[in-house]
Amino acid sequence: MNALLLIAHGSRRKQSNDEVIMLADKLKHNCSERYEIVHAGFLEIAEPLIPDGIKKCVDDGAESIIALPYFLNSGRHVIEDIPRIINSTLPLYPNVEIKIAPHIGASSLIMNLLVATANATE
Amino acid sequence: MNALLLIAHGSRRKQSNDEVIMLADKLKHNCSERYEIVHAGFLEIAEPLIPDGIKKCVDDGAESIIALPYFLNSGRHVIEDIPRIINSTLPLYPNVEIKIAPHIGASSLIMNLLVATANATE
Repeated sequence: MNALLLIAHGSRRKQSNDEVIMLADKLKHNCSERYEIVHAGFLEIAEPLIPDGIKKCVDDGAESIIALPYFLNSGRHVIEDIPRIINSTLPLYPNVEIKIAPHIGASSLIMNLLVATANATE
Repeated sequence: MNALLLIAHGSRRKQSNDEVIMLADKLKHNCSERYEIVHAGFLEIAEPLIPDGIKKCVDDGAESIIALPYFLNSGRHVIEDIPRIINSTLPLYPNVEIKIAPHIGASSLIMNLLVATANATE
């Protein structure tokens, strides 16, 4: 089974973390054909932390996990911290393929999103 | 003329701010039919700050400005700070219509972006 782990920074503001959890839930409903398992994981401050999010995916039966950084800018978190944390979990799950997606700010689709959001402004 | 002001938080890391400026440049090339003017503006730390970004748009001839928050989560910055700063500039430009778009994390298109980014992972 394929899993998607939505990785966000984590906020002291509970509502921001809840938004990420809700987004992961929505993702689960919207891409269940390709990703049977979807969880959220936080870099810091909020729970589940990334290693716990990976464990949840594995416990649910994931053979393949794509970790998707919900970050707009490249930076230390995206370049260093997330890969370091993910890599530290690899030895725990030798039979699970774990890959890191580009952060969403790097997507060429971000342009469409920006234009569509601007155009929809009332 | 219509203007788009891409609003980001601003980072101590120059490269993150440069990414926002480059994104605004790309936007200028990709939506020039609808928005003849595109600038970036930062909430704090980096320049131009939001009021200076608005002034740039007006100086370029903007009659209408859409301020587009490049933020994933709702929160104090999106809910309070950006509207407060934008509203404080309104009396300076009584003949310019200035509207605030939803932050991009609120867009229903964010789902497509997440799925496409995950699927493109090698």
